[in-house]
Amino acid sequence: MSAARPLVGITMGDPAGVGPEIAVKALAQPRIYDLCRPVCYADADLLRQAVRLCGVDATVHPISDLSQAKGTFGAIDVFQLPGLDLTNVTFGKVSPAAGHAAFVAVTTAIEAAMKRQIAAVVTGPLHKEALRLGGHDFPGHTEIFAHFTGSPRCAMMLAEGHFRVVHVSTHVSLRKACDAVTIRRVLEVIDLAHEALQRLGVPQPKIGVAGLNPHAGDGGLFGDEEELAIQPAIEQARQKGYDVQGPFPPDTFYPRAITGVYDVCVAMYHDQGHIPVKLQGFHYDGKRQRWNSVRGINITLGLPIIRTSVDHGTAFDLAGRGIASEQSMIEAIDYAARLAKGAAAT
Amino acid sequence: MSAARPLVGITMGDPAGVGPEIAVKALAQPRIYDLCRPVCYADADLLRQAVRLCGVDATVHPISDLSQAKGTFGAIDVFQLPGLDLTNVTFGKVSPAAGHAAFVAVTTAIEAAMKRQIAAVVTGPLHKEALRLGGHDFPGHTEIFAHFTGSPRCAMMLAEGHFRVVHVSTHVSLRKACDAVTIRRVLEVIDLAHEALQRLGVPQPKIGVAGLNPHAGDGGLFGDEEELAIQPAIEQARQKGYDVQGPFPPDTFYPRAITGVYDVCVAMYHDQGHIPVKLQGFHYDGKRQRWNSVRGINITLGLPIIRTSVDHGTAFDLAGRGIASEQSMIEAIDYAARLAKGAAAT
Repeated sequence: MSAARPLVGITMGDPAGVGPEIAVKALAQPRIYDLCRPVCYADADLLRQAVRLCGVDATVHPISDLSQAKGTFGAIDVFQLPGLDLTNVTFGKVSPAAGHAAFVAVTTAIEAAMKRQIAAVVTGPLHKEALRLGGHDFPGHTEIFAHFTGSPRCAMMLAEGHFRVVHVSTHVSLRKACDAVTIRRVLEVIDLAHEALQRLGVPQPKIGVAGLNPHAGDGGLFGDEEELAIQPAIEQARQKGYDVQGPFPPDTFYPRAITGVYDVCVAMYHDQGHIPVKLQGFHYDGKRQRWNSVRGINITLGLPIIRTSVDHGTAFDLAGRGIASEQSMIEAIDYAARLAKGAAAT
Repeated sequence: MSAARPLVGITMGDPAGVGPEIAVKALAQPRIYDLCRPVCYADADLLRQAVRLCGVDATVHPISDLSQAKGTFGAIDVFQLPGLDLTNVTFGKVSPAAGHAAFVAVTTAIEAAMKRQIAAVVTGPLHKEALRLGGHDFPGHTEIFAHFTGSPRCAMMLAEGHFRVVHVSTHVSLRKACDAVTIRRVLEVIDLAHEALQRLGVPQPKIGVAGLNPHAGDGGLFGDEEELAIQPAIEQARQKGYDVQGPFPPDTFYPRAITGVYDVCVAMYHDQGHIPVKLQGFHYDGKRQRWNSVRGINITLGLPIIRTSVDHGTAFDLAGRGIASEQSMIEAIDYAARLAKGAAAT
């Protein structure tokens, strides 16, 4: 594999959603081919349809072996997934066939990455209900990757430009999220954040850590997780030589953090990190009642392979119209390529 | 009391902080006097000093009875608080005398409002530690107002322009915040939000309600408060004829809500509402390491009197320099005057 231009697998996501369209639109950007050699994990006919729908000037180049990948701008390499039946898949409709096809794309790409045949996996959006109907009951990508790579200590990083947030917990209730704030887990997440930033080329990343409670507990008045778990974890991280500050009152931490004061932030639960990242990256048109832009990406830390993703859903209402924004997909490919180079260098 | 120009009491806040300065700077805006007749609850000498520090073109007009208030632009009416000793108060220093003086300003104004001598109270920033040293152990203004007006069912509203958020709980740990999400309390907060917006002149306010858990629980997968408490409260509110929608996944709710889709939002806990409001209103200069602007105000709902406040702290680092922004104070006075007119009309 070329170190200069790593092979990056892009999964199509749910074929009834916007995944195939944003993939081909992203690959219509020549600079993507400067960064990597992208290979779509999809169905060649589906991608041809997406190319037509989006008015993209490209051909589709089906391959059955990764050695056949050309990595040439204008000819989209597609690893033809075996045994798919997409005849009954309709844009914007939940179906078992679409859910299963999306799942096969992901697991096939994971397998290739585990064998080091590809340097990274970039995932298109899944539809959880379709996945379940297709016989695959996972809350989302992160859990699929954790399962198939045997990785119990993962963390979700969201990134929007230079604003990056890693989460102590994600898909659990807020009550369970409180339980998840332990010295061990907070330290683990600080470790994962530190390692990821080093791979992105920051030798000594500045890490800011939020509190769990309002006013970061206000000296124990409103909760003690700051004193019992977060502060000790920060001290242990500092003893390793990390540049870590906190725990900060969450409501004034994020307005500071979005200005780039820290290379990465540690959020104590899903919405504490997701609300500020989505306020930065998502812009809604209240009059038209639709999202004007959905920037930002999702990176799973703690896997033996590199995985990045768009940070939006299947957008069934936009599917088949060629109008979904490819911005998040472009950023996800860019991050994957940079992480692959960082991993190759370390 | 003139219905056209209500008397509005403005408390100085901690005299060692920026409260006196932002009060006199706000009162240097002629339009404040179009809205109301402001009266400062403070010390006349302290305000004279603030006038000099800020280079404001105004005189200070001490009064000992509210009937003496002139409400004339250029002559700041000051209700001289009795028995204060500010000789040992220094800008930027925590002291018992400053904490006590701030407390006397608040309770004197509350008393006048309870007697309907003033139409509203606008509060400058307190320093909690000074308050405690001064012998008054309250977590903040909201609790002082709840106590001295005998109001158990309060809620905090933050407002930044047309983005308004009312909180189901505020100064409790995140674990206790989960416990606070009950049908009764959520309905109470929806009621308070509805009433406040009507006073602000919106006859049928659109109310958006966030979930508690990530993805609003995702159908019960990550917590059941949405199904057990929030949804039933919303249904009861709708039966009263209110326009209420939710519960929504918090991370995509707020990016929609900031565009003005709802007249008011209901947040399930302190930081869920405070993070988006402060990301809107607070702007930090990462290079200079200071806040460039701190817009947004705080309104206590559920009191028998009207109370609004600045949404920032004492800013001890800026005190005595005449440079603190009066923006939040102006907005707080504006809201207080509008609420007073709304209350007079209903």
